[in-house]
Amino acid sequence: MTRTIKLTIEYDGTQFNGWQIQTPRTPDPSLRTPSESRTVQGELEKALQKIFKQNILLTGSGRTDSGVHALGQVAHFKTRSTMPEEEMRNALNANLPEDISVREAVEAASGFHAQYSVKSKTYRYTIHNHSVRCAQQRYYALHISRPLDLRRMRAEAQCLIGRRDFKSFTASDPAKRKSGKRENTIRIIKRLNIRKKGDTILIDIEANGFLYKMVRNIVGTLLEIGLKKLEKGSMRKILAQKNRHAAGTTAKAKGLCLLEVRY
Amino acid sequence: MTRTIKLTIEYDGTQFNGWQIQTPRTPDPSLRTPSESRTVQGELEKALQKIFKQNILLTGSGRTDSGVHALGQVAHFKTRSTMPEEEMRNALNANLPEDISVREAVEAASGFHAQYSVKSKTYRYTIHNHSVRCAQQRYYALHISRPLDLRRMRAEAQCLIGRRDFKSFTASDPAKRKSGKRENTIRIIKRLNIRKKGDTILIDIEANGFLYKMVRNIVGTLLEIGLKKLEKGSMRKILAQKNRHAAGTTAKAKGLCLLEVRY
Repeated sequence: MTRTIKLTIEYDGTQFNGWQIQTPRTPDPSLRTPSESRTVQGELEKALQKIFKQNILLTGSGRTDSGVHALGQVAHFKTRSTMPEEEMRNALNANLPEDISVREAVEAASGFHAQYSVKSKTYRYTIHNHSVRCAQQRYYALHISRPLDLRRMRAEAQCLIGRRDFKSFTASDPAKRKSGKRENTIRIIKRLNIRKKGDTILIDIEANGFLYKMVRNIVGTLLEIGLKKLEKGSMRKILAQKNRHAAGTTAKAKGLCLLEVRY
Repeated sequence: MTRTIKLTIEYDGTQFNGWQIQTPRTPDPSLRTPSESRTVQGELEKALQKIFKQNILLTGSGRTDSGVHALGQVAHFKTRSTMPEEEMRNALNANLPEDISVREAVEAASGFHAQYSVKSKTYRYTIHNHSVRCAQQRYYALHISRPLDLRRMRAEAQCLIGRRDFKSFTASDPAKRKSGKRENTIRIIKRLNIRKKGDTILIDIEANGFLYKMVRNIVGTLLEIGLKKLEKGSMRKILAQKNRHAAGTTAKAKGLCLLEVRY
């Protein structure tokens, strides 16, 4: 009987060219050349092939960009193996590089699909807001030396919560551009929290889904608001314009982490 | 007039061959060959030379091993420059690689010496105690998959607090071996705390000074106690033996961080 296995995956995105294997894809992971860029999906498929001695296609909840981290990325694959879940998890961790770890492997209902069954995703953006940069956080937080006005950021962020057209906050997706179809840019942000812990500012955003670069464009705009480069009421105006050129710059990838995917 | 400048330094030790420049030392940092190993002191002296256009000798509070991190290492140097402290700090940060940052530069009393004036140092050892390893903490915490008995570790650690002869917990120091002098192995541990935060265990040790590899040997022994490889009362017996072979193995460098140096 075919089983659907759901993996919860942590990774340090620093040394990956993102989640997704670049096309054209060489089907057999062991035949991929070193020049094919290093991806999280690629490393996982390589480990799965070693364990199950066959090519296994792994489907993630969605892509993450180069340099973006994850504590709770989710992916699924199908197998006829009867290996117990915990043994699968341990075998994967034994065969994966140190910058990926599988937190959990569980058998899911046969209809489960890591991408199509998603109810919500939560991303966290970490900012180190201090006059001096932080050596140990250099890959995990964006350093902003000037003080951020959190009250203003929180007030401006309010208009993003709910069902909105986020066209102003998405870049044209190179993977989807070819298809010629116009993408539905409406998403529901369920939660957007901005918290301060010492010199660290955490921006958590939960939504039913995210458009290409949406989190990084929202955060980039929030930072310009916090630095008072944009005036009060800007966020509402940017949202209404439905035009990428209206929003602020894209925040760097390294501060971003996919915290959780809910089903 | 000559000023003594005290620096408080953070670094990620992962890509350094420790704090200290290896001997033989090439006096002019710009003439050092790339084959001379990368050290924190070396990178700082290089930045100082760029800023002050002369060779400046930097004295640290003490060495840290390869892979050991610091949030509050302290060092001093002497200069005739009148550059304001904050400007000095910013110039250093602009000229240092990303894995070192100078948190503070202040003028100290002329008699201040980063090594000889030390009152106490605090080291933190971080352990990730969970069945699954943690990708994002791979350079900053030691992974122990079996549960540690913290109660037992805390009870056994008690006998280390106070003025003790730590001969059992030090390795022969290669830098001092040549001198032929027998080192005084008595130190005072002021504080030894073992705390748990989620899956993370933090061991903080404050002492008036540390012998070569002393923290890592104490932690290594505590871990064997926590894993019940050593029986109750072992720590007291090991301490009494004054023999390195009595203690547990040396814990890996990567979990260790020099938190603070007090003067």
